[in-house]
Amino acid sequence: MPERDPKLVSFDLALIGFGNVGRRFVKLLEQQRKALLHDHHLDYRVIGIATSRHGTAMRRQGLDLYSAVKLVESGGTLDALHDAGAEPSPTDTQSFIERFADLSDDKPRVVVETTTLDVATGEPAIRHVRTAINSGAHVITTNKGPAAFAYHALRDEAKAAGVSFLLEGTVLDGIPILNLVRETLPTVGITGFRGVLNSTTNHILTVMEQGGSAAEALAEMQAQGIAEADASLDVEGWDAAAKTAALANVLMDARLTPRAIARTGLSGLTESTVREAFLHGRRFKLVASVARHDGTVSGTVAPVELNADDPLAHLDGQANAVVLMTDLLGEIVITQCEGGLTQTAFGLLTDLVTIRRGMSKLNQLN
Amino acid sequence: MPERDPKLVSFDLALIGFGNVGRRFVKLLEQQRKALLHDHHLDYRVIGIATSRHGTAMRRQGLDLYSAVKLVESGGTLDALHDAGAEPSPTDTQSFIERFADLSDDKPRVVVETTTLDVATGEPAIRHVRTAINSGAHVITTNKGPAAFAYHALRDEAKAAGVSFLLEGTVLDGIPILNLVRETLPTVGITGFRGVLNSTTNHILTVMEQGGSAAEALAEMQAQGIAEADASLDVEGWDAAAKTAALANVLMDARLTPRAIARTGLSGLTESTVREAFLHGRRFKLVASVARHDGTVSGTVAPVELNADDPLAHLDGQANAVVLMTDLLGEIVITQCEGGLTQTAFGLLTDLVTIRRGMSKLNQLN
Repeated sequence: MPERDPKLVSFDLALIGFGNVGRRFVKLLEQQRKALLHDHHLDYRVIGIATSRHGTAMRRQGLDLYSAVKLVESGGTLDALHDAGAEPSPTDTQSFIERFADLSDDKPRVVVETTTLDVATGEPAIRHVRTAINSGAHVITTNKGPAAFAYHALRDEAKAAGVSFLLEGTVLDGIPILNLVRETLPTVGITGFRGVLNSTTNHILTVMEQGGSAAEALAEMQAQGIAEADASLDVEGWDAAAKTAALANVLMDARLTPRAIARTGLSGLTESTVREAFLHGRRFKLVASVARHDGTVSGTVAPVELNADDPLAHLDGQANAVVLMTDLLGEIVITQCEGGLTQTAFGLLTDLVTIRRGMSKLNQLN
Repeated sequence: MPERDPKLVSFDLALIGFGNVGRRFVKLLEQQRKALLHDHHLDYRVIGIATSRHGTAMRRQGLDLYSAVKLVESGGTLDALHDAGAEPSPTDTQSFIERFADLSDDKPRVVVETTTLDVATGEPAIRHVRTAINSGAHVITTNKGPAAFAYHALRDEAKAAGVSFLLEGTVLDGIPILNLVRETLPTVGITGFRGVLNSTTNHILTVMEQGGSAAEALAEMQAQGIAEADASLDVEGWDAAAKTAALANVLMDARLTPRAIARTGLSGLTESTVREAFLHGRRFKLVASVARHDGTVSGTVAPVELNADDPLAHLDGQANAVVLMTDLLGEIVITQCEGGLTQTAFGLLTDLVTIRRGMSKLNQLN
C-alpha cells in the first residue's frame, strides 16, 4: 500500500462550460494524474459540471469524467450523472457555485471557467468569476472576457478574498507567457509587446499564401474546434483584440478593453496581395502591438506586412509568438510552434499547479 | 519613518570572483534595490568579495560596493576595504567561505560564484560550490563548470543541506530558460532541444556574412568583455559544449560533460562559405542539439547551414535562442534578442529572488 503523502493537497473542482477546451482539460488532468500527484503533491476530483446545452451534474464523491465526456460528445445530457443528495441539479450558475461550496468538504475549491467569449461585454464569464471568488473559490479560466474587461477589479477582489484568479490559457494557449513574466522576470518592467496571437487568422494567411481560399481555411479550423464558432471573432480581429487587452492589463497594468484596441481585420486583404508579398519574401500577419506613451498604454491589431527577418514572420499555421519589450533585458521572444486544444487545456493545468505552489513553501528547486 | 516590512528577508552575500559579471551583478542589485525590497521583500548586503588578482575583503557590516567596483576597475586591490575584526583577509576560498559563515549573523547566506570556466575539469568552481553548500550557504553561479561536470551530485548535496544551487545565468545569459521549464511547464517532459547558445560565434558568423574578418570580430567581443579571454573556448565550441551539457543535465536529467558533446568549432569554416550561404538565403550558426535515443541523451555542437525559415536562422549578433522539444506541447522557442553582461548578471538576480520565494508561501499571484 502506498504511503500517504503528507504534502498532498486535494482540490475539489467545478467546471462551468464543458466544450472542446473543458473536455480536453479533464482528459489532460487524467493523463497527467501521476505526475501531478508525484511531482506536485496535487490531487483532484471534479464534483460539478455545468453546461448551457448538455445539462448540469453534481456529485459529492466526484463525477466519473470518462462518462461525462462520453455523454456530452454523444450529444447527451449530464443530468444522468447528477447525484447530490436529494437536491435537483442547479439551473443557474449562481446556485451551481453555491452548491459547489456546500458539497465540498473543506477542501480548496477551484472553479474552472471555459465558457465562450462574448467580446462585447465579457459576460456572463465576468459574473461567473466574481461569484466564484465571492464564494471563496479560486478561479482559473480560458475565457478572455474577464481579463479583457475587468482584470483589475477581479484581481483585487480575489486578493481580498484570499484566492487566486489565473488565466494562463487565454493568451498563446498554454505557452506560459503570464507565468514567464510573473515567475521568471522579477524586477523587469514590460514596456510593450508585439505578437501574433490568433491561430485562425495565422492559418488563413498561410493558406492564402499558398493560393488557397480564406473561406475554406476558416471552415477547416472551425471543424477542428480551433476557430471560434462566430467567424468574425477571428477574422475581424476581435479575438486578437481581447487577447491584446488581457495581456496589456495583466503585464503592463493597463486598463484596456477589446473595444479600445484599434482593430483592422483580414477582410480588406485580398488573396493576391497576400500571395504577392509572400512571393517577394514578405509575409502578412495579424499583428497585435502595444506600447506605452506618456504613461498611457494603447494597442492595435492589424494585418502587417513583415520582412523576412522579423521574429513574427516565420510563424506558420497555428504557431503563435509574443515579442516582449523589457526595460532591462531588451527584447525577449516566446514562440509556440504548435497550438491547439491540448495547449489551451495545459494553460488550465498550469494554473492549478500555480495555486498548489502558492499553498506551501515546498522547495521546488531540487 | 517607513514601516518595517514583516515579510522582509535580508541576505548576506559573499562573492567569489569579481570580474565583469560579478561587478555588473552588484551594480544591477543596487539599481534594482527598491524593486527587490518592495516587490520581493528582499534585502541584502555583501560582506565578502574574494578575487584571484585584486585581493579579498570581508566586512561584517557590509562592504561599500561602489568603492569595491571602483578599486577593481582602477586596477587596485580590495584589501584596502578589509575589516573583519582583528583577522587578516583569508587567502584561500575554503577559509573565505568559513569566515563568511562566522561573520554572518543568522541571516540566510548566499555565495555568488562567478569565476572563469575551466572547461577541462570544471574546477575550482565545483569545489567552491561544494564548500559553500557544506557550509550551509545557498549558491548561485554563472560558471557552467559545476552544472556541466557535477550537476546531479551538487544538486543532491544542496538538497540534503537544505539549500539551493541555482545557475540561471549559465545558459542564454539571463533569459530564464531553466526557470521557464521548472516554474512554468509543470508535468511537461523535455525530450530534446536545439539552440544557438554562444554569442561570440554567433556574432563572428554575422560579421563573416557581411564580408568582415572573424579575427577582428573576436577581438572586438573580447574587448567588450563578452567573449572569453581564451578564444578557443568560444571558437572551438567549448563554451557551447559546456552550456549544452549543463542544459541537458538540468532539463533532461542527463549525465553529460563538455567532453561527451560531439564538438566541431568554427575553424574549418571559411569566410567565403559563410558569405556564399548568406547570399543564397541560408545562414551558418553554431548549433547545439540534444536528443534522447533509447534512454540515452547525446549532444552535438557544430556549425549548421540553416534554411531561412528555421527559428534559429534569424538570430543576429548576440541574440541567442533555444528550441525546446516537449512531450506535451510540441516545440517552444525562447529567444533573447540582446545578450550581454546585464543579462548574465540578471541571471544571478533572478536566482536570488528564487531563493527568496522558496522561503515563504507569500502569495506572488496578485
